[in-house]
Amino acid sequence: MIKKYLFVFVLFFSFNMFADEGMWEPYQMELLQKELRASGYKGNVSNVSDLFKHPMSAIVSLGGCSAAFVSNQGLIATNYHCIEGSYLQFNSNAETDLFETGFVARTKDAEKRSAPGARVYVTLESSNITKQVLDGLTDDTKAIDRAKIIEDNKKEIIKKCETSDEVECRVRSFFSGETYKLEKVLKLKDIRLVYAPPAYIGEYGGEIDNWMYPRHTGDFALLRAYTAKDGSIKEYNEDNIPYKSDSFLKVSAKGVNEDDFVMVVGYPGRTNRTITFNEIEWDLKIGFHETVKFLKRGIELMEENTNQADGSKLKYRGLKSGYENYYKKISGQIDGANNFKLIESEKIKWDEFLQFVKNEASDEDKNYLNALLDLINQDQEKSIARRYYGNSSLISQAKTLYRNAVEREKIDAERKPGYQDRDQERMINRIKRLSYSFDPRVDQAIFKDRLMIYKDIDPSLRRPVYSKLLKLDESEETILNKIDDIYSTQFKNSESFSEMMTMSLDELNNSDDPLILFAKETFDESMKYEEESEERGAKRQLLKSKFIGLLKKYYKSSNKQLYADANGTLRVTYGNVKAVSLKDGLTYESFTKLEGIPQKHTGEEPFNASDKLLNLINKKDYGDYYYEPVNSVPVNFLSTLDITNGNSGSATINSDFELVGLAFDGMLETIIADYKYIPEARTISVDSRYFLWTLDKLENADNILEELSVTN
Amino acid sequence: MIKKYLFVFVLFFSFNMFADEGMWEPYQMELLQKELRASGYKGNVSNVSDLFKHPMSAIVSLGGCSAAFVSNQGLIATNYHCIEGSYLQFNSNAETDLFETGFVARTKDAEKRSAPGARVYVTLESSNITKQVLDGLTDDTKAIDRAKIIEDNKKEIIKKCETSDEVECRVRSFFSGETYKLEKVLKLKDIRLVYAPPAYIGEYGGEIDNWMYPRHTGDFALLRAYTAKDGSIKEYNEDNIPYKSDSFLKVSAKGVNEDDFVMVVGYPGRTNRTITFNEIEWDLKIGFHETVKFLKRGIELMEENTNQADGSKLKYRGLKSGYENYYKKISGQIDGANNFKLIESEKIKWDEFLQFVKNEASDEDKNYLNALLDLINQDQEKSIARRYYGNSSLISQAKTLYRNAVEREKIDAERKPGYQDRDQERMINRIKRLSYSFDPRVDQAIFKDRLMIYKDIDPSLRRPVYSKLLKLDESEETILNKIDDIYSTQFKNSESFSEMMTMSLDELNNSDDPLILFAKETFDESMKYEEESEERGAKRQLLKSKFIGLLKKYYKSSNKQLYADANGTLRVTYGNVKAVSLKDGLTYESFTKLEGIPQKHTGEEPFNASDKLLNLINKKDYGDYYYEPVNSVPVNFLSTLDITNGNSGSATINSDFELVGLAFDGMLETIIADYKYIPEARTISVDSRYFLWTLDKLENADNILEELSVTN
Repeated sequence: MIKKYLFVFVLFFSFNMFADEGMWEPYQMELLQKELRASGYKGNVSNVSDLFKHPMSAIVSLGGCSAAFVSNQGLIATNYHCIEGSYLQFNSNAETDLFETGFVARTKDAEKRSAPGARVYVTLESSNITKQVLDGLTDDTKAIDRAKIIEDNKKEIIKKCETSDEVECRVRSFFSGETYKLEKVLKLKDIRLVYAPPAYIGEYGGEIDNWMYPRHTGDFALLRAYTAKDGSIKEYNEDNIPYKSDSFLKVSAKGVNEDDFVMVVGYPGRTNRTITFNEIEWDLKIGFHETVKFLKRGIELMEENTNQADGSKLKYRGLKSGYENYYKKISGQIDGANNFKLIESEKIKWDEFLQFVKNEASDEDKNYLNALLDLINQDQEKSIARRYYGNSSLISQAKTLYRNAVEREKIDAERKPGYQDRDQERMINRIKRLSYSFDPRVDQAIFKDRLMIYKDIDPSLRRPVYSKLLKLDESEETILNKIDDIYSTQFKNSESFSEMMTMSLDELNNSDDPLILFAKETFDESMKYEEESEERGAKRQLLKSKFIGLLKKYYKSSNKQLYADANGTLRVTYGNVKAVSLKDGLTYESFTKLEGIPQKHTGEEPFNASDKLLNLINKKDYGDYYYEPVNSVPVNFLSTLDITNGNSGSATINSDFELVGLAFDGMLETIIADYKYIPEARTISVDSRYFLWTLDKLENADNILEELSVTN
Repeated sequence: MIKKYLFVFVLFFSFNMFADEGMWEPYQMELLQKELRASGYKGNVSNVSDLFKHPMSAIVSLGGCSAAFVSNQGLIATNYHCIEGSYLQFNSNAETDLFETGFVARTKDAEKRSAPGARVYVTLESSNITKQVLDGLTDDTKAIDRAKIIEDNKKEIIKKCETSDEVECRVRSFFSGETYKLEKVLKLKDIRLVYAPPAYIGEYGGEIDNWMYPRHTGDFALLRAYTAKDGSIKEYNEDNIPYKSDSFLKVSAKGVNEDDFVMVVGYPGRTNRTITFNEIEWDLKIGFHETVKFLKRGIELMEENTNQADGSKLKYRGLKSGYENYYKKISGQIDGANNFKLIESEKIKWDEFLQFVKNEASDEDKNYLNALLDLINQDQEKSIARRYYGNSSLISQAKTLYRNAVEREKIDAERKPGYQDRDQERMINRIKRLSYSFDPRVDQAIFKDRLMIYKDIDPSLRRPVYSKLLKLDESEETILNKIDDIYSTQFKNSESFSEMMTMSLDELNNSDDPLILFAKETFDESMKYEEESEERGAKRQLLKSKFIGLLKKYYKSSNKQLYADANGTLRVTYGNVKAVSLKDGLTYESFTKLEGIPQKHTGEEPFNASDKLLNLINKKDYGDYYYEPVNSVPVNFLSTLDITNGNSGSATINSDFELVGLAFDGMLETIIADYKYIPEARTISVDSRYFLWTLDKLENADNILEELSVTN
């Protein structure tokens, strides 16, 4: 599955070279009219290039996942795996396990609240603000000043934009800072769970089938957004009313056919298609393997240190599943890079680009390119040390709150982004989430293990103060005692951190709590490293902009369109329903069907379909959702759409803008597509017919079916 | 792979119920004219029902594998895996590894001799002799007499039939003794290796791809049979001349298309399709699991106890690979039985049969059926003990030779079958083979391990004298010492056993060699058990005949044809080239192609294609063997043919009797078809186009291509 919580792990690099197809920005659709038509698109092109026309206006973000309105009463369709944490885990406990039972709200009153901070974002505005962000800069501005100016400009822009707490504004970087756009979103705050199937449908196949095909996962769920009675945006209140979503997608009971045109509009998180060859090579030869090692150990640590009895297993369920998912993904990328001979082919293309640079670029631009490659090499050297620094969630939380106290001494406009008034709510919600996703005992065990690796790294690459305070150059026993000391803190859960958040800087400085002391004593060093990092970032922004400039020229010289790497902003990908053969002699068919579910059923998780489901399938009770070519109800289907993490939950729509599926995964064999578009790559969507069949036959959810506009 | 040496492991049961398709006896083809035509057969039906017409007359047996003449000079095509032992292993040593290099005889002089005893059998006669075999018997004859009479009748028939040492006669039981047929075969004795590809072609994919699809194995090889100048059959002599094979198959460079009619004529070894439900149930619930355990341990023992340095690894290569193959097969059968719900469906069918019996059978026949089921139950109880008895090849060899000495005291006609004059040659060859397939150290280690299990079996199920002599009720140390004592024998290799074979019974009885002593002291007990076993066998023969009588009536009542289980006699199976889907969403395509080879290539065995092969593929040098639908040269293809072990090496032929492939394997998912015909089962053949392409492009074997009659 393409899981939303994976963003945290994604590597820093971000760019894309020489792609043929892609995740287009909406405005680019106007330039791709011919290609769109060739794919079978019959609608008006302006509908898919204008964010504020239907169907684009029905598309929303959950922050990490995509989703779409499917009724005019704020009903939202997304993936099951996008709502597991904030809706299912949050509403489950020893007595009620929503993973096991699933959930159907038969009336609006029965709908369930979300975890604190769960949001739905509706895009209100998107505009190019490169000039404003870079205002006051020249190419010769010193990096440290450059960082400060960009930060100040951004803050200013955001401040002007965020006219109320109903909206959130973000400055988004495209092409690593070559372009900046301002995104203004409406921030819906009262979101409720309407429908989730039982896990035996929603995550049928679990980790085993994750990233795999043939697939039989019913990865669908429904939420509803609420506002105050006057339409203003409010947190949960039982008097709130459903959000008026005038633009929404109809849901097709007819579904798609082989070769049909399909499109996904969503919020892909991160790709690395316009990075330099040096970055690709390092990732493939070193980075991926280091990541796999790190994740594998992390999974082991969570297995060894959590248990059912004290609830720690449930608390780390989400994180562990994220690690496993990412582990499988990166392992697949390693294999894919080998199979598709990525290094070899990208080397050839890079050399061609260098030849172009040699012939066409100014000496100045050549120097910039060399400087960029130098900077990249320096960063790579330090990356392993960075990975093993700071693996204690407890300490990180304390440092964030100490920093927050420091920042709150200043007036709001002077504060660091992330610590302004607008950020306080997010910080509170993060603390609240600790109550169901953090256990100091487990955190300490993970920290200890990671630190044993960090201590063995060349001291010149380690942080001196941090290392000294943790006694990393002393005996293992001494180190472990020091950690025990820090973890003897009285601040180790949601409640106590909430308390710490209210403490003033003075109070913190006067505390003798070992955790607060450690946060205080490492503060100056952290600030120093942050500054250095910002300086490097500013340098990188300039140098990458120059690189992108060259790349655009290069693309123009061969008459190709370049698109920016995915960055969490709205993108369009279009293609067709299509089978694929990735191994000689073997074909992945376009559709899977109901009968594949009992085929995989073993009675053991993750293949533990219920008797009710198996009986319905056995009876061939297909209802209105029968699809003749498979002689059954289709469950999942393949298409040539180009998606990545963050696209999860995206409505897969047809030429008439009807929802025909929900995109939820890619295939392990081609997941290296994050680095390079691969024609054989396929998106797996859950079929709208399976979604409707489940609501109808299994759940008898007439209220929901009546609310949806089902087309035939 | 369907390996010939697997016969030794096959369980004792043998029958088949309610099959829809099958391995037909040639005479049955006349009754299947309509079905044959519907499958697309265009030839004369008498050609495929008459053993002595072309193409049937071109089909030969290697004893465990099938093969076919492909020129009028005795050239024979078969599978690579059928010639590994007697041709490649025999001709390989530390300096020359024919597995690595492959072998092409550029002239007849260069052809390589076979291991002692390698034979090619040409069928000369086949006739129903049930009456003669059962002559002098009534249903009331006592079992012990029954056994003796049948044995004597068989000996008499064989004696009359074997008019020279050029021929061999066999009495073959069909339907477990309900029918007997006499098979007279010409025994070609000078067989030479003409062509074998390197192992990276002949067993590309090795154990990993064994029983799997998509497949890319070049499982083909060529032998040549020789006779004396006057046409008489002689052992190897450099003056011998190629056998005149007037009936031979042309080889098609055009190959087959999707849906084409294909046929295999060959010698399937053993199926279990007409056994009682009690036997199926026991096999599936107990027997298979016991076998898997036994084989797994056997593989471990060979891994632990053999090494490169002393040559033991090479010596056990064949046996270990046989174990691995069979282990994979039985494991696949366990899974297949579950997936296809075999027990459930066969139970229903069995109950229907019992209903028929209840309504239609005489009381006498009902009693016979009950007696059969009782006998089966008794046998099953003892089967585990039998498996762990006698796992020393050294001791078995000594016992065989001691027995031979005992038998040789009698006149030939009085001797036990297997110890007559006609059997002496085979015995000698078996001893010769020990030189490259036996190591007393390894044998002893395996024996010790197996005996530790045998000793723990309920003493009432163990052999008392054998157990006493091996001190199985004493301490482990005492047992192991006793084994060491036996293995301190001076007879432990090919040469010394040859010597033992020449010793008279007196000499053996006077020997104080611990191995001979052990053989002598267990002799009476062995004879007693043999007699008991023969008595049971005779009982079973009668009861099974009665059961088959009922079964035939039952089949007749629903107008179906019954065919006997495979028993190593010539059978015909016909069908079509066809893809298959065994899992929802996944299709195994009909053909694999050259490009699949580099896809699987890792450089490590068993995926270690040579640069030469990879370059040829990379150059798309397809020559005359291009097949448009795959845009390449096909490598392997699937068909609905119904084959099993022993069919390996069978020519897959088209309606014009041209060789279009060589059948070499089935698919793990449907390998349970040995117990019940499964419509989704597929035969994997190596495509004639890949065979010819390899000879042409890779080997430049012009002499061979010229000798073959290649059609276009």
